[in-house]
Amino acid sequence: MSAALLEAIALTRADVCALHAELTRYGLVVWTAGNVSARVPGTDLMVIKPSGVSYQDLAPDQMVVTDLYGTPVSGNGEGGWGNPALSPSSDTAAHAYVYRHMPEVGGVVHTHSTYATAWAARGEAIPCVLTMMSDEFGGEIPVGPFALIGDDSIGHGIVETLKNSNSPAVLMQNHGPFTIGKDAKSAVKAAVMCEEVARTVHVARQLGDPLPIDQGHIDSLYARYQNVYGQ
Amino acid sequence: MSAALLEAIALTRADVCALHAELTRYGLVVWTAGNVSARVPGTDLMVIKPSGVSYQDLAPDQMVVTDLYGTPVSGNGEGGWGNPALSPSSDTAAHAYVYRHMPEVGGVVHTHSTYATAWAARGEAIPCVLTMMSDEFGGEIPVGPFALIGDDSIGHGIVETLKNSNSPAVLMQNHGPFTIGKDAKSAVKAAVMCEEVARTVHVARQLGDPLPIDQGHIDSLYARYQNVYGQ
Amino acid sequence: MSAALLEAIALTRADVCALHAELTRYGLVVWTAGNVSARVPGTDLMVIKPSGVSYQDLAPDQMVVTDLYGTPVSGNGEGGWGNPALSPSSDTAAHAYVYRHMPEVGGVVHTHSTYATAWAARGEAIPCVLTMMSDEFGGEIPVGPFALIGDDSIGHGIVETLKNSNSPAVLMQNHGPFTIGKDAKSAVKAAVMCEEVARTVHVARQLGDPLPIDQGHIDSLYARYQNVYGQ
Amino acid sequence: MSAALLEAIALTRADVCALHAELTRYGLVVWTAGNVSARVPGTDLMVIKPSGVSYQDLAPDQMVVTDLYGTPVSGNGEGGWGNPALSPSSDTAAHAYVYRHMPEVGGVVHTHSTYATAWAARGEAIPCVLTMMSDEFGGEIPVGPFALIGDDSIGHGIVETLKNSNSPAVLMQNHGPFTIGKDAKSAVKAAVMCEEVARTVHVARQLGDPLPIDQGHIDSLYARYQNVYGQ
Repeated sequence: MSAALLEAIALTRADVCALHAELTRYGLVVWTAGNVSARVPGTDLMVIKPSGVSYQDLAPDQMVVTDLYGTPVSGNGEGGWGNPALSPSSDTAAHAYVYRHMPEVGGVVHTHSTYATAWAARGEAIPCVLTMMSDEFGGEIPVGPFALIGDDSIGHGIVETLKNSNSPAVLMQNHGPFTIGKDAKSAVKAAVMCEEVARTVHVARQLGDPLPIDQGHIDSLYARYQNVYGQ
Repeated sequence: MSAALLEAIALTRADVCALHAELTRYGLVVWTAGNVSARVPGTDLMVIKPSGVSYQDLAPDQMVVTDLYGTPVSGNGEGGWGNPALSPSSDTAAHAYVYRHMPEVGGVVHTHSTYATAWAARGEAIPCVLTMMSDEFGGEIPVGPFALIGDDSIGHGIVETLKNSNSPAVLMQNHGPFTIGKDAKSAVKAAVMCEEVARTVHVARQLGDPLPIDQGHIDSLYARYQNVYGQ
Repeated sequence: MSAALLEAIALTRADVCALHAELTRYGLVVWTAGNVSARVPGTDLMVIKPSGVSYQDLAPDQMVVTDLYGTPVSGNGEGGWGNPALSPSSDTAAHAYVYRHMPEVGGVVHTHSTYATAWAARGEAIPCVLTMMSDEFGGEIPVGPFALIGDDSIGHGIVETLKNSNSPAVLMQNHGPFTIGKDAKSAVKAAVMCEEVARTVHVARQLGDPLPIDQGHIDSLYARYQNVYGQ
Repeated sequence: MSAALLEAIALTRADVCALHAELTRYGLVVWTAGNVSARVPGTDLMVIKPSGVSYQDLAPDQMVVTDLYGTPVSGNGEGGWGNPALSPSSDTAAHAYVYRHMPEVGGVVHTHSTYATAWAARGEAIPCVLTMMSDEFGGEIPVGPFALIGDDSIGHGIVETLKNSNSPAVLMQNHGPFTIGKDAKSAVKAAVMCEEVARTVHVARQLGDPLPIDQGHIDSLYARYQNVYGQ
């Protein structure tokens, strides 16, 4: 087992642990109901929150390392990285499915954030009526199928919905949003922005119909933002 | 009076005191309008917040020990645990009634959290249209009767409503939610999740009708979550 | 000038200054848009926030002492208490009018808290459909007249509305709530509870009609709470 | 290059950096989606947030100095003030256009604050139905045109809309609010108050029609507040 692998796992655990603080900062989660994961770069491993642990109690070495089928692995033997005596998130199978089927994805986030989940409860996509939504999502935020936990059906629903969309967020029906990104931070940003636009479009719709944005304008805003914004 | 009893009371007071911070953290209470209690394990005693004291001023030794009729008792005489010169919460009778009639209950919480209380004001149960609600509540959150403070009618309404329900939360009409759990922390979690689903379903309903979840799916989600989730 | 008077002024200034932190804690104010005042007990003096100063910058000796017509007085000469080189709140005349005409009032609070102000914008009283509202307000929260700042018309509207009501809060039309109490802390509590019930009844009304509470029940809840609650 | 200019730039950078904390304090922004700028007094320079940097990571020397066409300038050579190796906000062109065409403006703020953006999504001006809105805005908050980022069209839309209005805030259609002020703090205050009145009028409208205020009353409130309020 190489020192580089142990280092990559340690960095990923620290990153995944720290990013959960963004979920509470932006009010996306209560109690233990949301989770962040990341692919360990260049490996077939992922790191995810343990199940049912409070956000204020999280520490990096509690983050569970699993293979891409969600089975905890600890690199047993000389030079192993160890694993806590904790079960991984009950959503691990869905995260793992995404990493297996979307090799470009490096991070996945799941929350039950209020406004995004409300759109999900109605099974209604969020229409793209804001310039910031054009920038970040490049169109509507789509709805994925109703799926029960316990097998690959949630993961399959996420992948089938997102592979035909610009959006890094999907609203799983009656359930809540899952978001993806090139790394965990990008997936967290998508979760934050998903709730932000879910809330803003909800509020706009409460008193009437938002004005549509031409598809050509959406496309040009999306192209520009993906290529130019930031440092 | 045994050292074990004094220790159990001290632990319960510390626990009940600390859990009030979760009510403010999640925005379930303002001023002094909410309270947590716990049964002292293995006894006929309970511990509850004093009446009208601000959350930021609470200390463990201010928590009032009462019998299961809500009468403060202090274990007078050699080895007594003492009691503060404070009256217990004005909701003590309701908590005590629950402990007398539901031996499996170890903790009770009462708040006037905004969205749960709004459903209570309309006398309307919260329909189970979210997977997280299936997990935690196993169906709708029911409404209890209108009842005046001052006798057993609130406690009676809570018990009669909850004994026929999977839900650990009841919305007392025009009043607000009461929640129960195997211990005080579980009852606090139920209060947090009750407000969370009350808000999310409210928001969903503002723009249309949430999609129903099949009863069979609700049942399987509930069974799984009660047996598998967490560590 | 007696030491007792100087002491009373110093205590009142400290109290009024500190209570502004409750306005920000409960989200009742933004920027500088709300104020607390108190009568200096046993005198014809009052203490009020200076105009246009941010809440985080407030210090006790910035609180302005005025007579009951709102004119700053500093007890000039030997033993005077001094006054900051700051103008009192632009709402001082309204506070002063209340102290002149309601001798039982020791504290006044004014905010533009969101939900209470929204009812005020529609000129609609908040109906008493919650037990906590029966406790605190003893009935509806009434609306006062539209009145311009600059003379006694706001103060007159507050007094005329509240003298016929159990409620310690009045919603001045198109403007916002004013609350009163036996002291400044009671008036702040009334401001917090006014926003709380304004929000909860608003949310209840968004999805239907709240159930009414019988007037007899409102009366008995109010009588009990005013006499029994707290320590 | 004069010491006075270097001092003015340093003060402006510190001021612009610090004011971003007010955007997060009042919940007007998430992630990196909002920015403050200021004209360097007495010069043809402005200072603005760097693009895509988190609010908690901002430091004064990261604020970018540009000319009034938005081009970063660093006063190269002996005595230059330097510039970070960071791109200015992607909204810089809009801010710069305002400074070029409105010489009385010393500060500009842009956010996507929820309620103001919701009115912008419907293309609907916020009617003046609150006394605090009469004070601050002197009438309705107007809507500006839909405009794509990348040239002068956003800046042009802001200036054309605001030059005919008392309001220091404009709701750019499908986009969000821009506010102006005599300095950056005034523009931030306008952004805070814009969201406050956007939310309050929204809430009022949810349950009916707010009562109008006579134009004569709006005018007299505005005239008084602009001349008398504060210290």
